[in-house]
Amino acid sequence: MDSSPVKSRALVARGPFSEGKWAMEDVTLREIQEDEVLVEMVASGLCHTDLHCGDTPDDKGVPGVYYPRVLGHEGSGYVQKVGSAVTHVQPGDPVLLSFTYCGSCHVCKTGPVSHCTSFFQINFLGGPVFTPQSASASDDKAPTLGGLFFGQSSFAQHTIASAKSVVNVAGLGLTRDDLKLLAPFGCGLLTGSGTVANVAKAGPDDAVAVMGLGGVGLAAVMAAKNSGCAQIVGVDRVPARLALARKLGATHVVDTTEVSATTGDLVGAIRDAAGGLGPTVAIDASGHQPLVMAAVEATRHMGRIIQVGAGMPDAVVHLPMQAWMDTGKQYFGAVMGHSDTAEYIPRMIRWWKDGDFPFETLVQSFSFDDWEVAIASMIKGTVVKPIMVW
Amino acid sequence: MDSSPVKSRALVARGPFSEGKWAMEDVTLREIQEDEVLVEMVASGLCHTDLHCGDTPDDKGVPGVYYPRVLGHEGSGYVQKVGSAVTHVQPGDPVLLSFTYCGSCHVCKTGPVSHCTSFFQINFLGGPVFTPQSASASDDKAPTLGGLFFGQSSFAQHTIASAKSVVNVAGLGLTRDDLKLLAPFGCGLLTGSGTVANVAKAGPDDAVAVMGLGGVGLAAVMAAKNSGCAQIVGVDRVPARLALARKLGATHVVDTTEVSATTGDLVGAIRDAAGGLGPTVAIDASGHQPLVMAAVEATRHMGRIIQVGAGMPDAVVHLPMQAWMDTGKQYFGAVMGHSDTAEYIPRMIRWWKDGDFPFETLVQSFSFDDWEVAIASMIKGTVVKPIMVW
Repeated sequence: MDSSPVKSRALVARGPFSEGKWAMEDVTLREIQEDEVLVEMVASGLCHTDLHCGDTPDDKGVPGVYYPRVLGHEGSGYVQKVGSAVTHVQPGDPVLLSFTYCGSCHVCKTGPVSHCTSFFQINFLGGPVFTPQSASASDDKAPTLGGLFFGQSSFAQHTIASAKSVVNVAGLGLTRDDLKLLAPFGCGLLTGSGTVANVAKAGPDDAVAVMGLGGVGLAAVMAAKNSGCAQIVGVDRVPARLALARKLGATHVVDTTEVSATTGDLVGAIRDAAGGLGPTVAIDASGHQPLVMAAVEATRHMGRIIQVGAGMPDAVVHLPMQAWMDTGKQYFGAVMGHSDTAEYIPRMIRWWKDGDFPFETLVQSFSFDDWEVAIASMIKGTVVKPIMVW
Repeated sequence: MDSSPVKSRALVARGPFSEGKWAMEDVTLREIQEDEVLVEMVASGLCHTDLHCGDTPDDKGVPGVYYPRVLGHEGSGYVQKVGSAVTHVQPGDPVLLSFTYCGSCHVCKTGPVSHCTSFFQINFLGGPVFTPQSASASDDKAPTLGGLFFGQSSFAQHTIASAKSVVNVAGLGLTRDDLKLLAPFGCGLLTGSGTVANVAKAGPDDAVAVMGLGGVGLAAVMAAKNSGCAQIVGVDRVPARLALARKLGATHVVDTTEVSATTGDLVGAIRDAAGGLGPTVAIDASGHQPLVMAAVEATRHMGRIIQVGAGMPDAVVHLPMQAWMDTGKQYFGAVMGHSDTAEYIPRMIRWWKDGDFPFETLVQSFSFDDWEVAIASMIKGTVVKPIMVW
């Protein structure tokens, strides 16, 4: 096997995006370790978490922010090489990339691994993988650019991924063009649909409200439709997003700007739309504290409010102890839709093949060379989920 | 059947207990309605909720407080007469009394009925049942004293109970002396044990922490022992309660006064005691907000914090949105241990007969004539669960 260093290209963040400190660079990859996989990337999805970590100054003490590094945490590609301990993929296999986890903590042992006690450390910090080709020969050979963001750093044409981040999708009859489209399955779409399917296990008796209709929220809407939920209520302030939610299965939508302008009764509007009693399941994909509080109030007795949007670091939800006890409502968070990625990502692909997960309406593809345009489209909100293709 | 009005005695609250406004009075009961049961009471348990409603001035606007009324919401007795729609008990049957519910709301239809959307209204407000015998013959015959507290108002020698409050315990071979002892099964003991058995469904893999070791908390400790939980951590500030918890099955105890005095680290102490990782299940039976917050922090990833103590009306629990999402912890309340009383109370009785629910250590019996002494013992804390016997 050829063991000469792999040379490739990567989108390197050397500082915040909005300060113009991202650039496409020629890089060299270090050797893979025994539990790692070398992947030739086909495409990457773009997500707001990439900007959280790549558009924040690193002198603010925000955890998980450092430079220089290669970001990207949704992607598709083909395996080129596997470490000695890797058994679930082999060179040539088509793969999708998702999050990683330690595999040994008390949560990983019982599941869901997405709540691994080291999740933040492993996924947000990663470790050095890439070296700029511009580094002089006399420089230390140790890699200087951070990789393994979410176990993958998918914004590189070749990358090293943690074995746990690599989902084998061989045997599903996927073409290279399919992989270009499926690149974003590993994070936002998985989170939104997994929250409905795996966490809430929603069904025909459920009234599901989704707060915030980005990629995560709209994936939740699609999954709620697949689950035959009685009512599906989309809540957002952007008319185009509300229209998209209707198209994807929302039975009702609530425009937060209209409600606050006319009746001032967001809680009542959500409750009315959700069968008159309020949602049995409210999924917050907005991370916006006032919307969470509205969901908390609108949800019916014994209902569940599931926190999926991360929100600001200092955001706090306030629950009145006595009323909370009386109503039996539950408030909890769910990361990555509690997904067992090896099982769940192929399931999502089968839904898509059957026409039950029409996520194409959410995406727009860009050449990786147009990465600045792609990122700008996400920031402006004109595209829900940009895909960058090598 | 004799249809002359039933004359009896009742402990009537005409104002707050501490203002000396409770008295034993001769009363006449109104006729039973079709879904009601006339019960000759054997004994009543005493609970802090009786004082919440019976020691608060009624000009403060506190919901559920009004006078004059007959309180009491745990009791045992024998059926004397049943309404035309009642089929599950007949005259002569031994019964225990518990809470009631509407039976028709969306929660009652799917369960648990203890989270009935009308729970407060039905259980705390009740309705008129008793008339003082001192009322002159010319007075209106309509009853003037409130009854049906928790569907029963057990502080009367004869009472009218909602059929849903009446649990048939015929066929369990109980003597009248047994009924004297089992009187408190309908509320606190059911709540504590039911939270472990029905809500948490705790088992050998669980580390259970119980905050507040009154009747509810100690019943939770007994149930956790029955469930074979790996660690059972009792948390309180009263040494005698901590000792009792140890006797009943707590593997560890945390004295909140010692912890705050020496290390200041209540959270660490609970976490250490609960297998080093923190509880998988934390049950708050204290209603004390700082203890709830400590439980929230100490609980391990994916753990559940179950609010059972009602707490002050203005108490609020603050949950940091982002960390809450990451950890997957759940915060929710549970009323009456989600008990299906017709099934669960006989189950508790079988545990007791098998020696697995030694609640005798918590109770002390008083004659009903000594009601002032009984109540004082609960207020002082010298008795966990007083029983008043006719």
